[in-house]
Amino acid sequence: MYIGIDLGGTNIAAGIVNKAGELLATDSTPTMSFRTAEEITDDIIMLTKRITEKNGYSISDIDGIGIGCPSAVDDKNGIVVQTANLKMNNFEIKKYINREINVPVRLANDADCAAMGEYMVNYKGVDSFVFVTLGTGVGGGIILDGKLYTGFNNISTELGHITLNFDGPKCGCGKYGCFEAYASVTALINQTKAEMEKSPDSLMHKMAENEGKVTGRTSFDAAKQGDMAALKVVKNYTRYIAEGIVSIENLLQPQVIVIGGGISKEGAYILNPVMEFVEKYRFNRNLETTKIEIAKLFNDAGIIGAAMLCTK
Amino acid sequence: MYIGIDLGGTNIAAGIVNKAGELLATDSTPTMSFRTAEEITDDIIMLTKRITEKNGYSISDIDGIGIGCPSAVDDKNGIVVQTANLKMNNFEIKKYINREINVPVRLANDADCAAMGEYMVNYKGVDSFVFVTLGTGVGGGIILDGKLYTGFNNISTELGHITLNFDGPKCGCGKYGCFEAYASVTALINQTKAEMEKSPDSLMHKMAENEGKVTGRTSFDAAKQGDMAALKVVKNYTRYIAEGIVSIENLLQPQVIVIGGGISKEGAYILNPVMEFVEKYRFNRNLETTKIEIAKLFNDAGIIGAAMLCTK
Repeated sequence: MYIGIDLGGTNIAAGIVNKAGELLATDSTPTMSFRTAEEITDDIIMLTKRITEKNGYSISDIDGIGIGCPSAVDDKNGIVVQTANLKMNNFEIKKYINREINVPVRLANDADCAAMGEYMVNYKGVDSFVFVTLGTGVGGGIILDGKLYTGFNNISTELGHITLNFDGPKCGCGKYGCFEAYASVTALINQTKAEMEKSPDSLMHKMAENEGKVTGRTSFDAAKQGDMAALKVVKNYTRYIAEGIVSIENLLQPQVIVIGGGISKEGAYILNPVMEFVEKYRFNRNLETTKIEIAKLFNDAGIIGAAMLCTK
Repeated sequence: MYIGIDLGGTNIAAGIVNKAGELLATDSTPTMSFRTAEEITDDIIMLTKRITEKNGYSISDIDGIGIGCPSAVDDKNGIVVQTANLKMNNFEIKKYINREINVPVRLANDADCAAMGEYMVNYKGVDSFVFVTLGTGVGGGIILDGKLYTGFNNISTELGHITLNFDGPKCGCGKYGCFEAYASVTALINQTKAEMEKSPDSLMHKMAENEGKVTGRTSFDAAKQGDMAALKVVKNYTRYIAEGIVSIENLLQPQVIVIGGGISKEGAYILNPVMEFVEKYRFNRNLETTKIEIAKLFNDAGIIGAAMLCTK
């Protein structure tokens, strides 16, 4: 069996995953991202041992540890190359883990792991696969011929930073009008707040009050009850998602694009308007077209995908 | 030796190419695109024979014929699948040619052939390679691990149809604000005309008069002489190119992006402002970055790339 680790800014999540990609058990511990690379990795080792023993396995049953990192990684040499939120730049994590647990350690970017998880469990064998995750930011992963495509420099796709509107709002990356600046949940919340200011009678105010704050769900919940201002927010937001999807489809003609991340739980409320736009504006409207679907694994995808790195 | 065919809307160009990718001889004949698939293919056969014999070779010296088509192709089965400007949809071109000349026939999209030509001659061994061609439209090709990436449906990349500004002008594909709608030579000519209307004293008027019409060179030629209105056109146009390049780089992190097509002959006048933008706004500014260069082969790339298809 494999251990999959999803190393996030808030939590380190671990899972036991079998060769079929089934998640058998999970465990987690807070990341406390201010800590050193060694301290954080000690917790990865601790979690690996704890989940293994708790579930009746022994260390010798582990065939590999796969780690999804919020960073660029050098999988070949087992190095966390560069992270925005953790103090782990250029850390030789494989070597460090191997002093305690001597099994193969594989690394990938966290969004790539989510892509790999979704692919291995639900889309295995698909020729070309793009996973788009709509969360605090917009990220994703590209899998071609069953292998993660990570670019020549192992940075992996930064598909959240294709431009949708060069006259648009400034993105965290410094560029203007990125996919992420329109389609992240952060952007949705800003779009919701802006519309709420213009519409004091909107149901969204009540929704936000009930939840204690404006969230990614505020506009969707109000829209489902027919609130006009909320419907407008959702209409624009799903159009932004669709613009990004069409650009990715036109560039790569992948067999499947999967939309994941927390907001994708809205399911048909996202997929239907996205498909309406995509079917009208995609370049290829005559030959076989890209399938566009909603993710099925949600939070487990990262752990499963990380574990599945060890099968390659 | 190989025969490379560049099947264009205006001319059918043929070349003899050796295994090293050197173009030894060329020949051409008008396409007369109103003709049937059989008539056009008869001319491909005629050209193949003529260029072979004229240059002291015999048919038995031909190791393969590669054809770059302005279309989606089914290389495996030797079929021209779908063309916008020729009456060749679903034409079994390999079978038709093989009745006369029984050698391997390989097919690819014309922009893919140009990409392959540039790659094989100047970038062989590069991990990941994107060719962007700025012409009447904006097209390109993607080569990963030395192989053309053509998508699951063999449509190949339509990188001209990523969105740069969803509030922008309508593109020929039906979508709004595509890369092609901003960065094609057609778009440049429109941008030049619009600026000329606003600037009756601009040197561009004289340039256009001398050439008999506004071309893709009008603004560049006037800008080189310091004309302010022309400088503005060139500044905006190169910014549009750069926006597209950055989106492609962020999405794919390719090792090299090459800018080709007629307008790329402007060389540093394009590359310098593009690089200024790219270096400021690319996502990856810390690890090794994508190399962005101007094409070296120009018109021969399509013939050479088509021939080189036969080496795979």
